Amino acid sequence: MTDKTQNAMWGGRFADGPDAIMEAINASISFDQRLYAQDIAGSRAHAAMLAAQGIISDKDAKAIREGLLTVLSEIETGNFAFSTALEDIHMNVEARLKEIIGEPAGRLHTARSRNDQVATDFRLWVRDRCDEAVGKLSALCMALVGQAEAGADWVMPGFTHLQTAQPVTWGHHMLAYVEMFSRDIGRFTDARKRMNECPLGAAALAGTSFPIDRFATAAALGFDRPAANSLDAVSDRDFALEFLAAAAITAMHLSRFAEELVIWSSAQFRFVALSDRFSTGSSIMPQKKNPDAAELIRAKVGRIMGANVGLMMVMKGLPLTYSKDMQEDKEQVFDAADNLMLALAAMEGMVRDMSANRANLEKAASSGFSTATDLADWLVRALGLPFRDAHHITGSLVAMAEKKGCDLPDLNLAEMQSAHAGITDEVYSVLGVHNSVASRQSFGGTAPDQVRARIADWKARLA
Amino acid sequence: MTDKTQNAMWGGRFADGPDAIMEAINASISFDQRLYAQDIAGSRAHAAMLAAQGIISDKDAKAIREGLLTVLSEIETGNFAFSTALEDIHMNVEARLKEIIGEPAGRLHTARSRNDQVATDFRLWVRDRCDEAVGKLSALCMALVGQAEAGADWVMPGFTHLQTAQPVTWGHHMLAYVEMFSRDIGRFTDARKRMNECPLGAAALAGTSFPIDRFATAAALGFDRPAANSLDAVSDRDFALEFLAAAAITAMHLSRFAEELVIWSSAQFRFVALSDRFSTGSSIMPQKKNPDAAELIRAKVGRIMGANVGLMMVMKGLPLTYSKDMQEDKEQVFDAADNLMLALAAMEGMVRDMSANRANLEKAASSGFSTATDLADWLVRALGLPFRDAHHITGSLVAMAEKKGCDLPDLNLAEMQSAHAGITDEVYSVLGVHNSVASRQSFGGTAPDQVRARIADWKARLA
Amino acid sequence: MTDKTQNAMWGGRFADGPDAIMEAINASISFDQRLYAQDIAGSRAHAAMLAAQGIISDKDAKAIREGLLTVLSEIETGNFAFSTALEDIHMNVEARLKEIIGEPAGRLHTARSRNDQVATDFRLWVRDRCDEAVGKLSALCMALVGQAEAGADWVMPGFTHLQTAQPVTWGHHMLAYVEMFSRDIGRFTDARKRMNECPLGAAALAGTSFPIDRFATAAALGFDRPAANSLDAVSDRDFALEFLAAAAITAMHLSRFAEELVIWSSAQFRFVALSDRFSTGSSIMPQKKNPDAAELIRAKVGRIMGANVGLMMVMKGLPLTYSKDMQEDKEQVFDAADNLMLALAAMEGMVRDMSANRANLEKAASSGFSTATDLADWLVRALGLPFRDAHHITGSLVAMAEKKGCDLPDLNLAEMQSAHAGITDEVYSVLGVHNSVASRQSFGGTAPDQVRARIADWKARLA
Amino acid sequence: MTDKTQNAMWGGRFADGPDAIMEAINASISFDQRLYAQDIAGSRAHAAMLAAQGIISDKDAKAIREGLLTVLSEIETGNFAFSTALEDIHMNVEARLKEIIGEPAGRLHTARSRNDQVATDFRLWVRDRCDEAVGKLSALCMALVGQAEAGADWVMPGFTHLQTAQPVTWGHHMLAYVEMFSRDIGRFTDARKRMNECPLGAAALAGTSFPIDRFATAAALGFDRPAANSLDAVSDRDFALEFLAAAAITAMHLSRFAEELVIWSSAQFRFVALSDRFSTGSSIMPQKKNPDAAELIRAKVGRIMGANVGLMMVMKGLPLTYSKDMQEDKEQVFDAADNLMLALAAMEGMVRDMSANRANLEKAASSGFSTATDLADWLVRALGLPFRDAHHITGSLVAMAEKKGCDLPDLNLAEMQSAHAGITDEVYSVLGVHNSVASRQSFGGTAPDQVRARIADWKARLA
Repeated sequence: MTDKTQNAMWGGRFADGPDAIMEAINASISFDQRLYAQDIAGSRAHAAMLAAQGIISDKDAKAIREGLLTVLSEIETGNFAFSTALEDIHMNVEARLKEIIGEPAGRLHTARSRNDQVATDFRLWVRDRCDEAVGKLSALCMALVGQAEAGADWVMPGFTHLQTAQPVTWGHHMLAYVEMFSRDIGRFTDARKRMNECPLGAAALAGTSFPIDRFATAAALGFDRPAANSLDAVSDRDFALEFLAAAAITAMHLSRFAEELVIWSSAQFRFVALSDRFSTGSSIMPQKKNPDAAELIRAKVGRIMGANVGLMMVMKGLPLTYSKDMQEDKEQVFDAADNLMLALAAMEGMVRDMSANRANLEKAASSGFSTATDLADWLVRALGLPFRDAHHITGSLVAMAEKKGCDLPDLNLAEMQSAHAGITDEVYSVLGVHNSVASRQSFGGTAPDQVRARIADWKARLA
Repeated sequence: MTDKTQNAMWGGRFADGPDAIMEAINASISFDQRLYAQDIAGSRAHAAMLAAQGIISDKDAKAIREGLLTVLSEIETGNFAFSTALEDIHMNVEARLKEIIGEPAGRLHTARSRNDQVATDFRLWVRDRCDEAVGKLSALCMALVGQAEAGADWVMPGFTHLQTAQPVTWGHHMLAYVEMFSRDIGRFTDARKRMNECPLGAAALAGTSFPIDRFATAAALGFDRPAANSLDAVSDRDFALEFLAAAAITAMHLSRFAEELVIWSSAQFRFVALSDRFSTGSSIMPQKKNPDAAELIRAKVGRIMGANVGLMMVMKGLPLTYSKDMQEDKEQVFDAADNLMLALAAMEGMVRDMSANRANLEKAASSGFSTATDLADWLVRALGLPFRDAHHITGSLVAMAEKKGCDLPDLNLAEMQSAHAGITDEVYSVLGVHNSVASRQSFGGTAPDQVRARIADWKARLA
Repeated sequence: MTDKTQNAMWGGRFADGPDAIMEAINASISFDQRLYAQDIAGSRAHAAMLAAQGIISDKDAKAIREGLLTVLSEIETGNFAFSTALEDIHMNVEARLKEIIGEPAGRLHTARSRNDQVATDFRLWVRDRCDEAVGKLSALCMALVGQAEAGADWVMPGFTHLQTAQPVTWGHHMLAYVEMFSRDIGRFTDARKRMNECPLGAAALAGTSFPIDRFATAAALGFDRPAANSLDAVSDRDFALEFLAAAAITAMHLSRFAEELVIWSSAQFRFVALSDRFSTGSSIMPQKKNPDAAELIRAKVGRIMGANVGLMMVMKGLPLTYSKDMQEDKEQVFDAADNLMLALAAMEGMVRDMSANRANLEKAASSGFSTATDLADWLVRALGLPFRDAHHITGSLVAMAEKKGCDLPDLNLAEMQSAHAGITDEVYSVLGVHNSVASRQSFGGTAPDQVRARIADWKARLA
Repeated sequence: MTDKTQNAMWGGRFADGPDAIMEAINASISFDQRLYAQDIAGSRAHAAMLAAQGIISDKDAKAIREGLLTVLSEIETGNFAFSTALEDIHMNVEARLKEIIGEPAGRLHTARSRNDQVATDFRLWVRDRCDEAVGKLSALCMALVGQAEAGADWVMPGFTHLQTAQPVTWGHHMLAYVEMFSRDIGRFTDARKRMNECPLGAAALAGTSFPIDRFATAAALGFDRPAANSLDAVSDRDFALEFLAAAAITAMHLSRFAEELVIWSSAQFRFVALSDRFSTGSSIMPQKKNPDAAELIRAKVGRIMGANVGLMMVMKGLPLTYSKDMQEDKEQVFDAADNLMLALAAMEGMVRDMSANRANLEKAASSGFSTATDLADWLVRALGLPFRDAHHITGSLVAMAEKKGCDLPDLNLAEMQSAHAGITDEVYSVLGVHNSVASRQSFGGTAPDQVRARIADWKARLA
């Protein structure tokens, strides 16, 4: 974000500078220069097609295509002077091309317009970000699978309402996030597939009378097909919105895990230790390790969802076809994509580096009558009681233990039988936290065997 | 929305009513009763599975399954008394079941909890709404295809910036929306596929020690498979968020078309006449036909995107697994779904009923030098000029026509040749609006032939 | 929210029911009936003014005004049949008035229209909600002041990044929220003042040729003045948006406190015990006390901010004056207001009922070298060191203590002096948590004296 | 926005670069350098106070204060090297100060922390933006008053639902926006007042044991008073959120006017001509004048409301006091403020430059039976009919005129009397559009006299 408010020309009283204001609000080169690679790729494909169709000469096409590579190289080496007067990346590239190759540059814009050109460029950029997101999400999933494998049978409290409910395994908890992030992969993959249609050839809005081959340019740029309606092709920003919606849900998942990391890092929990590399310290309190990265990751869902709201509001109620409002699409998506990628990379790093405190996890899991449900289930299974009755009996035993200041396994058999005469010694086998988690053998349950089976699945899927 | 603020018990000073406040904020039966059919279907599948696995007796399962049908029938016939004291739909149904069949009702809750139960119910409901959205979108697409077919070659102005740019065809404009709505169908279809995993059997959060068959219940309820991680299964609301994101984009598309209908209905445009059935009149100005339905449809994106923001904000930063915050999911989704379905149905009705004013459309298309681009393209094609030069020559001819107060086809050949000596009589063949649209034969272009080909495609796809 | 999707008439295929769809999307009586009291008050004021200005007869005005009281009483006693065919609350009331008093009812609508009528009704309703919010916020502040007074000198950890930073007092922490909620009071108060202009008399949009007295109706309804531009008066929904913005910030404050209560209620923190009345239990785990109310309060910011987004999006880009889109204003505001009031009342109840665990708070405050900053400040103050140097010395002492497994006060003087020779016995006076908090005497600091002074201020302000 | 995704160090596989990722996500200097002037002003005030209280020497204070001016000058002249390793603006300034003045620089941080420092800096920056917004809004209001004065009695259609309803005056329409923007001024003014409390002296979170004078620093920085609770002072971002909420409503108002300008500039309306300076043209269609500035202004509400949502979501559920999440506050506010100021300046310029087409406005106002309401009102006023009856008679006359293909004034008296025998010649006096607007003499009505009175009011208020 450039500091536009300090622009002397329109920052004060207006009288003498209206053109400067118009330039400031109208030009997009300060941000759309990020599309240079996509713009040049699109132009090269277009020129090749024009020649193949006999619309321009092979010679001109060759000059254009080579000239564009020169421009690309100039930009990538920092030897390109972007001009605000030329408004946008398309005009900047074309003007420089003309300087390099002369007259044939004027033939490049045959059978296209800036409307289909920018729609193509931006779509290519967003498509790349889908691929990047999938890559980063896969890496994060592998980091989580690594944590899961290390602690497939470590016991920790399973919370509801941040209150201990039942013991679960560390590996199981890590894999819960793998489920979430793999759904995110699915969303980016679907979005990519849906957006993979090429606007090029829609021209200003109506298509063109030149005998172009839209299937050829689409194929050259890796699109599955050309967009089937020229009006829609230049008016559509669904691909950006669907990317933002997928990014926002991903960022929400990140915020949930980040919240857990912040809470787990507190002196009161001490469930995990984050590495120095993803914390900040204090020169005065060396024991203090602030989970800054986790907090920043937690926050990112704000700006990404904000971008989603922003672009939805821009598109609301716009008549067809192109309106200048749509120029507001890029900065929102750029900022959201940058921050998503950054957050994913930081989370992956944090997950790889963090160490769970196995002893603290197990200690926390063992308190709070966390196996009460196991007792109730045993009453149903072993004694055939209806679940609602089993609940009631368990409640009275927990009350008894609480009164005695002990936990459930500490009650003796006589005490147990005072609540229900049919209780046998076998009951103690279900009251330890390790027994508890081992017993949850239902598909997708927290038993270490189940966790290990899921780890194997994920390794195969993510390989 | 119930009028909670007028609740005497907590509306005034607080002292004596805290329990009433807690009940008011905590109970969900006022809205989650909409899940009754899903809840009963889920319980029936669960009971059948429990019996098949030998966890409960066949006799109990039969009593439960039949009793639940009785409850269903009572609810559907309005003979069921919902109780706020019983908090939610699950407890209301189970309590009534117990009244009907007695003790076996207590066995239904074996190996499940309200956490996996509500996740299943709500998922089933949202899945149904995906199907409903697809159905309504298809119907709307068919209505648009109908309009496109009637006016495949009617000429109208193609706008950019709401300024006439080039002539296009009515059919082409209608099909642009078919593209949008068909992408919406794709999003709902993908979302449905992704959400189609069954949480049942995740129990409270850890799975269960009973030998349940999660694949059986999943299959019985039409799910593709059971959810693979029990912690995720009870914590996940992605399915609701992805539905809302898809609904918001759909509603944005509706808002764009609605905006066009409002503008097109103005006295200044008169491009379309909406039917009386989708307008409101005025007793005093009988000629006045307010496009109320279009305006209301235009507005719906607000509350649907608002619901999306609302639920994203609820989920932000929630640690695993279930937190009561998640109870806020349903009202947002119910309201968004209701309004989406209503807007889709109203738009379909409006589209079916509206009549385009072919004469006004063509007259508007023919003004404003709308074929200037055709002239430029002809100069490139016929005379081999670079496009940028052709642009320049066309500009001078438009200026000449403007000065004379005529349009381009009204310039004589000598005048044409004063701009470029090579211009021939042939140029007049591209200057009429019908010639213009007919020439845009590129794939996806506005030529009537292209439009008719797309109509045929859509009819096949939507059939 | 009514279950519109299950409306048989437009829920399936469309053919025979378009009028039903239009009625479903168009009618507002299902929700705007909440404005009945405001509508009748507005009509009574209007009738009185019409008579005072000689526009209708005193006799007619008397009949109208008395008839309206009858309608009011019918509605309040539940003896009024609302009709969807009559669309909205205005027509429902007027139609019933006509049944009661006959012909004079037809004179009530002189010099007004539904556009200024609904703007007035809704504004009155929102104004009432501002007053209600101020009342509920004041009650909540008093509850917090009560907690602050009880524990003005109780010591607890002051957190940054959820890591212990410095000891603070419980009273100080409670008063931080009083600051936030008092700013909320300020926002509702400012909003109320700004919205307190009367639209009545703007008529459809242009004002009226009848010699009405807008100052009289404004005064009768408690407005400060009539709205000064009739076009704006019927098009403006700023009052609703400003209410929603203030409500959203309030709800955000509530979410922060609710988050703390959830964390503080965890087994790992045990800083507070919530009362049974604002928790839910579990039949099987009687020790479990889920902070459901806190979680639900935490979530409310979602739907309130969602409503804010929703209405902003509705208003975006609407040309003047009234468009039917604006009918979407009420449900959003009703729902947001209901939930805000509920959340405020629940929070007040929870605060009044909760008990802080003084021992746990103090124990947590005393660990983690929480007085390291006090030591550094003492080095600056007593020895004249630059703060950055003092920081460094403190860091080495904390490292020493950590190595020894003790806290700072446990180091002996020789050890202290090994870090800086000038350290004296006096240093121990600043190392205890009680000394630490007592020393923070800067205005607004955490010292008990400061807290008590602020409590006195607040009691005076809130009285 | 920098192109972080192309950062080689964390863009690919992660292994060797985690520190780079942490630096990328953690450092704020790339954006918070905009706070340099506020940071230096705050430090200078703090140093002066420390000396006045005897906490540091006058000599040190003098060195610090002068050194800071040197730093300021270096930054303003572009001779300052910002360092990412130093993280933020505070550390960058302090490090440079140390280079310039040596040891005394280390005393500046006495009795403060970065937490209260950044809260102060950012608050000062937002306060400046409130002032800037008020200035720009006032200038825009004056431009609108200028338009209103030029066309106080020009007649144009007053629209509801974008359908002609009644004639109004151009001046009246312009003043409707002055009402909106003046409410915006009120909101920024209230926000400024509320935020004008100084956090400085809250230190890290608890206040300080140094005998500082917070009233002195507050006064030196133009604050009304010090913030009264140190925990709140470092945790509060209400000032930023209230600014964003006010900015979003302002941007919504801008979007409404921008929408009108876009519609009014269409070939079908031609109500206004925008100047070349705020339009873009087309080299090929010289008559085409695209309202780009209006479209871009219309879009700005998206990103500003997006920023509001973003920061609200960041703050949701954050426990006290400072969390690193809050670092996400600045970019959102900077971007929103920049774009708001730009949009306001552009709108002012557009309004000053635009010319209304008086003839087209009047022609549009005169069609469509726009004085039907005047006829109905005359029947009430002259003949004493109830308004509902007058409505009915008018409806029949409009139907008669429509059938004859004429407008209301074209019906002869006999025709008039066929609808109601009591109608006299006098009726014709109310049927012209000029008579119609002149008759709307109610306060705030559209009559030119009313408009001129309001113009006089505004000139006095805005002077």
